[in-house]
Amino acid sequence: MKADFDELAGFGGTPDGGVHRPAWSPAHRQAREWFLARARASGLETRIDGAGNMIAELPGACGASPPKSLLLGSHLDSVPNGGRFDGALGVVAGLEVLRVFQENRLDPGARLELYDFSDEEGRFFGLMGSQAAAGLLTAKQLEQAGPDILSFRAALEEAGLNPESILSARREPGSLAGYLELHIEQGPRLEQAGANIGIVTSIVGIRSFRLVFIGRSDHAGTTPLEQRFDAGLGAAAFNLAARRHVGKNHPGCVVTVGDMRFSPGAFNVVPKAVTLSLEFRAETTEALDSLESELLNLAGDQAQAFGLALEIFPMERAEPASLDPGFQDTITQAGVRLGLKTLSLPSGAGHDAQSLARICPSAMIFVPSAGGSSHSPREFTEWEDCLQGADALLQTSLSITLGPA
Amino acid sequence: MKADFDELAGFGGTPDGGVHRPAWSPAHRQAREWFLARARASGLETRIDGAGNMIAELPGACGASPPKSLLLGSHLDSVPNGGRFDGALGVVAGLEVLRVFQENRLDPGARLELYDFSDEEGRFFGLMGSQAAAGLLTAKQLEQAGPDILSFRAALEEAGLNPESILSARREPGSLAGYLELHIEQGPRLEQAGANIGIVTSIVGIRSFRLVFIGRSDHAGTTPLEQRFDAGLGAAAFNLAARRHVGKNHPGCVVTVGDMRFSPGAFNVVPKAVTLSLEFRAETTEALDSLESELLNLAGDQAQAFGLALEIFPMERAEPASLDPGFQDTITQAGVRLGLKTLSLPSGAGHDAQSLARICPSAMIFVPSAGGSSHSPREFTEWEDCLQGADALLQTSLSITLGPA
Repeated sequence: MKADFDELAGFGGTPDGGVHRPAWSPAHRQAREWFLARARASGLETRIDGAGNMIAELPGACGASPPKSLLLGSHLDSVPNGGRFDGALGVVAGLEVLRVFQENRLDPGARLELYDFSDEEGRFFGLMGSQAAAGLLTAKQLEQAGPDILSFRAALEEAGLNPESILSARREPGSLAGYLELHIEQGPRLEQAGANIGIVTSIVGIRSFRLVFIGRSDHAGTTPLEQRFDAGLGAAAFNLAARRHVGKNHPGCVVTVGDMRFSPGAFNVVPKAVTLSLEFRAETTEALDSLESELLNLAGDQAQAFGLALEIFPMERAEPASLDPGFQDTITQAGVRLGLKTLSLPSGAGHDAQSLARICPSAMIFVPSAGGSSHSPREFTEWEDCLQGADALLQTSLSITLGPA
Repeated sequence: MKADFDELAGFGGTPDGGVHRPAWSPAHRQAREWFLARARASGLETRIDGAGNMIAELPGACGASPPKSLLLGSHLDSVPNGGRFDGALGVVAGLEVLRVFQENRLDPGARLELYDFSDEEGRFFGLMGSQAAAGLLTAKQLEQAGPDILSFRAALEEAGLNPESILSARREPGSLAGYLELHIEQGPRLEQAGANIGIVTSIVGIRSFRLVFIGRSDHAGTTPLEQRFDAGLGAAAFNLAARRHVGKNHPGCVVTVGDMRFSPGAFNVVPKAVTLSLEFRAETTEALDSLESELLNLAGDQAQAFGLALEIFPMERAEPASLDPGFQDTITQAGVRLGLKTLSLPSGAGHDAQSLARICPSAMIFVPSAGGSSHSPREFTEWEDCLQGADALLQTSLSITLGPA
């Protein structure tokens, strides 16, 4: 498992020890090929579904009347210049769990399948693969993915995918026994509590939008300040106002403006348009609804204050999820057997598990993140902690498929 | 001249009637090749100097002891998605003036040379070609051109240039009789006054900087708002503060943040760094000095307020210029002979003329810009106005080289 993990970190590895492996980048495609080869080398069967998800499973499990499936999963893509643990650990540990079943000729009472989900990090469409598998997507959503729609379509085409194929990745809820995911915490709570593993109680809801503030391009020397329609000023005022509003009125929620692109983007031209990436998170659908209406109103107010037009493109929409209490108990018992200190906690990060939680019992195991850092080359988890997480994943998988120990 | 103008507008022409021809882009290289071919087809001699400036002149003028040179000039590059008149009109009209001399076998008492100056618009280094010709550059300036230095070097190399060759483009001040440039006004004053041509009294000074606000990349879901070092917020606060400060304390001056680039630039990552393009203009060196220290202090304050580091890279530095009173009189007299209504006015736009004004008598003729629009596809000047400007350029050239009419 350590060899797998290190080899995987080489695909898109950056000099500062991080990983740059955005969905469908060359490094990501290399990592996918590596995954298929490693799974086959371990005697597993592999397939790729219509959403580009890669699946490995024990051979011969899919007979005439296959049993229900227990899914394991996570993702091989990364944020730009991210870390080597996010997503990768869950895939590598899942592979190891399948290998243990295969090498020990354990015959699970369920089909055991390992998913690598497409575009978890949302280069174009966050949680796309898991939302497709959970049947949460519509063709309309896939066809209206904002101003990057052309690059999205091109990336899909290059990967041999299209909206119709993506919808075909849907799993029948009745065919699923559940979903398990091992992941780094990406926050500081386990480290601060001195816990070995975290048992996730719920996953935050996420919504994102692309906002385009539109003014007028003008000569930066001859156009007096008071005669300008400067898209950059409206976007700047919105960024500050959004931070202030959420900090003051929504404690515990977060809002992020992660990117702005200026057009035409020159020293000597008043910016005509700024395309801004807005994301916010909350633990309930009600809080997400409030944030959405309040933040979009704020954007409209700031656009108006600077004489700008505003276009709004909905992007990601991941509902908050409660994870399965029965599965949480099973993980707790596994922790006891392994002598690990456990901590129950909610997740502020989004995960493929929140897609699957909509259609089957789902659970997540966290391992500590040093200093709470993630989405950064500073992301780090002690290998001992990774192994304990993988052990807990194995024990939980055994309990669910073979019955109580 | 109309045919030349229309053909030139085809290089980098955009569907909305504008032009996208940044320095050294493919469209710009095509326009340069076209210029050399057109000049040679008119019987002119051509050369390219070490700064990439292209020069056309009457044949045989450069003998053993050549007379002083009267330079005409402007530039073929454009801002991103700019208009078809800015720069192009002056080059095409200069070509026409040389043709009139050539076809009528007029023997000027001076060498008559037409310059197309490199990178006037500052894709990498504003007014580079004319500052090189005026001997205003140092090797150090060319080697420290901020965070885009690598792209700048690559563009120079592709064009066969290097810092040493650029310095070699310097003209000996004693060899120059003067410099004349025809250009669109890029502001509304001629149109509002009903004047046919403008006689420029002075040119604004311009300074620009790239500022890099540096914070920390973090997970946008698990990092509480109050624990972030968000480079985007500091850059936003500076943009608004700069606009407010200059509007309140420096009437008549302008400040522009024309571009920001976010790194890593993703929905779900707190921005680690924002690279911001800052430019400001004033009519005196004293005002420029005040603006520079005040704005850079403001940037430092905002960086500090958000817990960010700040890096400052000086870019363009074009001193304010007073144009030659004698040449202004000559243009006035030409206007009288042509029956044109003239208006004397300062230029809020930067021009190659302000480089040449440092080493020889220099003057500029403006023609009206409809609605004052420029650096935009909306940029427009009636062709009749363009022709009257070209007539004034010809008459002025004749007066200077052949003596008073």
